[in-house]
Amino acid sequence: MRQAGRYLPEYRALRNKHGFMDMCKTPELAVEVTLQPVRRFELDAAIIFSDILLPLEPMGIEVAFAEGDGPAIRTPIRTKADVDRLRPIAPEDDMSFLMEALRATRSALAGKVPLIGFSGAPFTLASYAIEGGGSKNFVLAKSMMLAEPAIFQRLMEALTDMVVGYLNAQVASGAQALQVFDSWVGALSAQDYASFVLPHMKRLFAQVNHSVPVIHFGVGAFHLLPLLAEAGGDVIGVDWRTPLDEAWRIIGGTRAIQGNLDPVDLFAPPSAVEARVTDVLSRAAGRPGHIFNLGHGVLPGTPPEAVALVVDTVHDRSRRA
Amino acid sequence: MRQAGRYLPEYRALRNKHGFMDMCKTPELAVEVTLQPVRRFELDAAIIFSDILLPLEPMGIEVAFAEGDGPAIRTPIRTKADVDRLRPIAPEDDMSFLMEALRATRSALAGKVPLIGFSGAPFTLASYAIEGGGSKNFVLAKSMMLAEPAIFQRLMEALTDMVVGYLNAQVASGAQALQVFDSWVGALSAQDYASFVLPHMKRLFAQVNHSVPVIHFGVGAFHLLPLLAEAGGDVIGVDWRTPLDEAWRIIGGTRAIQGNLDPVDLFAPPSAVEARVTDVLSRAAGRPGHIFNLGHGVLPGTPPEAVALVVDTVHDRSRRA
Repeated sequence: MRQAGRYLPEYRALRNKHGFMDMCKTPELAVEVTLQPVRRFELDAAIIFSDILLPLEPMGIEVAFAEGDGPAIRTPIRTKADVDRLRPIAPEDDMSFLMEALRATRSALAGKVPLIGFSGAPFTLASYAIEGGGSKNFVLAKSMMLAEPAIFQRLMEALTDMVVGYLNAQVASGAQALQVFDSWVGALSAQDYASFVLPHMKRLFAQVNHSVPVIHFGVGAFHLLPLLAEAGGDVIGVDWRTPLDEAWRIIGGTRAIQGNLDPVDLFAPPSAVEARVTDVLSRAAGRPGHIFNLGHGVLPGTPPEAVALVVDTVHDRSRRA
Repeated sequence: MRQAGRYLPEYRALRNKHGFMDMCKTPELAVEVTLQPVRRFELDAAIIFSDILLPLEPMGIEVAFAEGDGPAIRTPIRTKADVDRLRPIAPEDDMSFLMEALRATRSALAGKVPLIGFSGAPFTLASYAIEGGGSKNFVLAKSMMLAEPAIFQRLMEALTDMVVGYLNAQVASGAQALQVFDSWVGALSAQDYASFVLPHMKRLFAQVNHSVPVIHFGVGAFHLLPLLAEAGGDVIGVDWRTPLDEAWRIIGGTRAIQGNLDPVDLFAPPSAVEARVTDVLSRAAGRPGHIFNLGHGVLPGTPPEAVALVVDTVHDRSRRA
């Protein structure tokens, strides 16, 4: 999950000098930001610094990051013509800055910890593209599903093609694990997921390079967990709303689970942080294949000492177990 | 669920002349807004027009509704002193405008359809009071839980006292059913709900006047459904993310369920709206005690014709069944 960001003073120092997009698109800066949390904490993996919306740009969707606001899509996708205009991407060329950042990070890490690449999932990207930015109720995205299902499915196909090529290029550039973020999928009912998302996710997981582990993560998606597991992924990522023991019951013993400390728990006093971490580990006790993680990215304002405490507690408890 | 509001031209006409708070606090206007959807559609119940934050004011928490924005708390609750300063309310006096609106609406309805009163649930009200408004991650509310559990529990106690008195006064003023909205509870893990919310909700449902049916509604709370059912309520309200058939399996056959059409479905073409309504009804088929409703309030921009179509389809299909 996101390890870099505004909670780290060394990130803010860089960010004061560079725009967010510039940081993503300048390999030296992306490498530096990727390495910052790995330098500071005894983490077990690094995750490349980037943004899920960037590969939309070479498809022909203009993305803007305004200061203080979330990302915005300048050319939202609303009609059949908008979808028809989308271009396939050549990730090695179109996303060369990211591929270069992956290669340079791999080299800088020198085998110390593995490097994770990632992509947004097609539904989350489709929602951004249709809504034009963040959304509370997903009225435009869901309306397109219901009023123009063929156009919505075509958009999902184009995005799935892009995500597969993008992830596989990341493996070719050195990513040693992949994570697919379906951050907004929790807004859907199970029946809409089954009709409009599942077929595309199945194809995605069938076509992605499985020479590395692939993590499939959904936010607020406990009600979709059986379908997320059916869609695919060597590891299923869950947030704090999904109890780990229940998740395992649903997913079955053959797959690993990643999660699921509430990122807000890191604002608690140290003794409470330790108790929360221990609780997560105890729910995974006796089951192989638990990857400890937060249930979502590190929040702005999180005390860096709390991140260190989480990492140390996980290592300490895991060694003792 | 919210039936009145910005999607109705007759509401907007009134709203152009009056502030939102004035409309809530002027019984003649609140009655008029409550009756608008009942006049226009063949609804089976009316729900009083109000806002869940209003009873915070007599407790000593200042609430402001800025134009275009959501409600904001001018005096957020952050410390023990803030909680100690909270006053118990005398609902018949402090909320006399609402009690008068209930009595006048009952009289105007003249038995045509029953009248529902409501309150926010303690956790949702506590989150508003602590955060000072809407929140994405509930950092302040959850931090108080973890860092100052005794203060948080005391706040929940004070709010539970208020809600019980407020709901019981509504019954005395003519409400023929009650709904408790826990709109934000879905942000919590099951263990936090069990520790910080469940005991208060159990007391609430034990102390509320059960001479009328009480509906307990949580948003995005599929992962909490067994605990919500344990907390109480004659009817459990669920949103579109909870499949009705699964909800019944979890809740058991002794209680009614209310829900759960996605409000966004009302933006779909008429044939899709009908199909969605029919699907909800079919999932409830053969089970007594299903109250058809949206899974959340009617969204701004909803075509009034779609609301009419939903109501007619429900009546048509229910008569045929």
